Amino acid sequence: MKFHMNSIRTVSRVLRNRSPSLQLHSNHVLTAQLHSSSKQTNRGGSFGIAFDIDGVILRGHTPIGDSPKALRRLYHDSGSLKIPYLFLTNGGGIPESRRASDLSQILGVNIDPIQVVQGHSPFKNLLKRYENELVVATGKGEPAVVMCEYGFKKAISLDEYASYFNNIDPLSPYKLWTTKQPCNEQRSSSESVPSFVVASERVKAAFVVSDPVDWSRDIQVLCDILRSGGLPGEKSDHQPHMYFAADDLEYQAVFPSERLGMGAFRIALESIFNRIHHKPLEYTSFGKPNPSVFKNAESILKQLQPLTNDGDLNEDNKDMKLNHFETLYMIGDNPSVDIKGARQAGYPWFSILTRTGVFRGKENHTEYPADQVVDTVEEAVEFILQREGNA
Amino acid sequence: MKFHMNSIRTVSRVLRNRSPSLQLHSNHVLTAQLHSSSKQTNRGGSFGIAFDIDGVILRGHTPIGDSPKALRRLYHDSGSLKIPYLFLTNGGGIPESRRASDLSQILGVNIDPIQVVQGHSPFKNLLKRYENELVVATGKGEPAVVMCEYGFKKAISLDEYASYFNNIDPLSPYKLWTTKQPCNEQRSSSESVPSFVVASERVKAAFVVSDPVDWSRDIQVLCDILRSGGLPGEKSDHQPHMYFAADDLEYQAVFPSERLGMGAFRIALESIFNRIHHKPLEYTSFGKPNPSVFKNAESILKQLQPLTNDGDLNEDNKDMKLNHFETLYMIGDNPSVDIKGARQAGYPWFSILTRTGVFRGKENHTEYPADQVVDTVEEAVEFILQREGNA
Repeated sequence: MKFHMNSIRTVSRVLRNRSPSLQLHSNHVLTAQLHSSSKQTNRGGSFGIAFDIDGVILRGHTPIGDSPKALRRLYHDSGSLKIPYLFLTNGGGIPESRRASDLSQILGVNIDPIQVVQGHSPFKNLLKRYENELVVATGKGEPAVVMCEYGFKKAISLDEYASYFNNIDPLSPYKLWTTKQPCNEQRSSSESVPSFVVASERVKAAFVVSDPVDWSRDIQVLCDILRSGGLPGEKSDHQPHMYFAADDLEYQAVFPSERLGMGAFRIALESIFNRIHHKPLEYTSFGKPNPSVFKNAESILKQLQPLTNDGDLNEDNKDMKLNHFETLYMIGDNPSVDIKGARQAGYPWFSILTRTGVFRGKENHTEYPADQVVDTVEEAVEFILQREGNA
Repeated sequence: MKFHMNSIRTVSRVLRNRSPSLQLHSNHVLTAQLHSSSKQTNRGGSFGIAFDIDGVILRGHTPIGDSPKALRRLYHDSGSLKIPYLFLTNGGGIPESRRASDLSQILGVNIDPIQVVQGHSPFKNLLKRYENELVVATGKGEPAVVMCEYGFKKAISLDEYASYFNNIDPLSPYKLWTTKQPCNEQRSSSESVPSFVVASERVKAAFVVSDPVDWSRDIQVLCDILRSGGLPGEKSDHQPHMYFAADDLEYQAVFPSERLGMGAFRIALESIFNRIHHKPLEYTSFGKPNPSVFKNAESILKQLQPLTNDGDLNEDNKDMKLNHFETLYMIGDNPSVDIKGARQAGYPWFSILTRTGVFRGKENHTEYPADQVVDTVEEAVEFILQREGNA
């Protein structure tokens, strides 16, 4: 492996110097790099970018830090992708396809669903385990739709699940929610989860897809599910598994100071569960700064590499999928999520911290210093393109 | 004191034996007891009863355990109070006056507001400290109305408070609450808290009056208030004081298994606050099993004693206010709240545990055994009246 990486580095250095005379290397990786460089007169596919969304690209639904301008620089004039990039957010609640089209509209560039990695995207990988099992999903947006799109056959929103248990939420008379059951709406009637299944079958896993809205109901019903072995009212020592899409304690939204995130919900649920149950809560959380998220992002960026050559997917370019990037840039606003994550992920990650979100410091962050600190995402992209000789 | 108590006990024993010949005692306590006994041919004012409501008297809004029948036995045929009793609940959210009339209607007896002690009733005692200060109140029902009725001039619901800060709750677009501002509705316009006060004045204290409904919003806004010295966005190390009406982890509602109570909310808030703030949350919680609640109940029951003599408030009866009860019965369903509380309060409290709520055991509770275990509140009253020679 070491030799392989070194060879790429050598090529890169050569390319950076814009020298056409190359050292002798016989592996196809080099061939691919050359192919790329000859077309673009730059390092081409040797770097990629991951953008955090909230506090970097958008605040609420509004672009910040000249993000539309920054993103346009990553495309050819033809509108096709020049630099492999993706969005790496802990947020979510709607399917990646819908998020991609929303972002395309707000930012004025053409974003493919593969370029949107949300907190819950790794839930796809659990399909084999739970495809035909009863699972509940909660969070703002349409958590059950997300799970259905991933292929889970018996995913049901906590909203809908709770509706099958009279008086399970003693505070419901004080709430005037609109309860959506979008998952079933999108299914044909033959596909929907029948009510007798919900009332008699044990829930095998609970997924927090996005920030929960109704904490009192969600914590109550999750505690009911988790301490009953998956069927409120029953007794069982077996705790159904609990998955969180992310574990952000706080994040930057529209309000001037940070807002509580999914990590805060996890702390609330865990603290209460551990007081009412004899065995501590077991759970798995995904999202940044988890190193697996950065590994996954790298592999998606590799898939995006060929597209940077105007979709010219010849044999050489196909091989590029196996390439290692020389540098992957993580642009984020949250030191303990984005920067900590990129640092933990290590090579080839390079962290850039903006001042448009959680972080507002003059210098670098003390606990999780970034490789580079800039004011805005536009500055970050300018820095990257300069550094890569691609400006 | 010891002699005094012994003398009352002596009298009681005599009365229990229904003997007209009494030992010689010259203090007025004895005189009062005699006066009472001569009218009622029983121990009259020497005992009183405190009833928990949820899981003992009602489940939801429905009477349980023959509670209407049990309560009727505490009244004279004329409808006036025969046995001093009150309701001692950790619940709340509406003023005592309204709760009394609601209970009167449901239970078919005439209940005076003084007989309703809710979790938040001790907040009255904080009036001197906060009468003219900006304070926020949260919980189901009408928390600000409760505080206004107690005399707090600048009490505002967290619902209303949050409405002055745009985007303070990032989840609000996902919620379709009806936001009530009942406190101001009941005030004349000259009395209401002007918006400039809310936006510029520091909150001096936060009161959790009843079970919070919108946990995510309440935890977020309380954290904002508590870590900013009372004005979200500002910086201050001083934490405004935080008061909880009760600290029940769980309680029995309509759903077959226990539901999370105010104590669970406190745990959630505290766990999150302690993660985002460098100083741990400081707070005061009231409600059972706090011994002060039982002291307060005793003093109210003393005020009710004279009423047991058909309202005949002569000089002797007035003196009875100073009497000590021989026995005060606490009838509850929750071992760790009602029974633990009565045990901690000690003499003259006698605890009776029903099987209609949290507790469902065959024998006594292991950790907090009651002095007596019965099936229902009707059985509890029967037991008391038998024991007191008053059946």
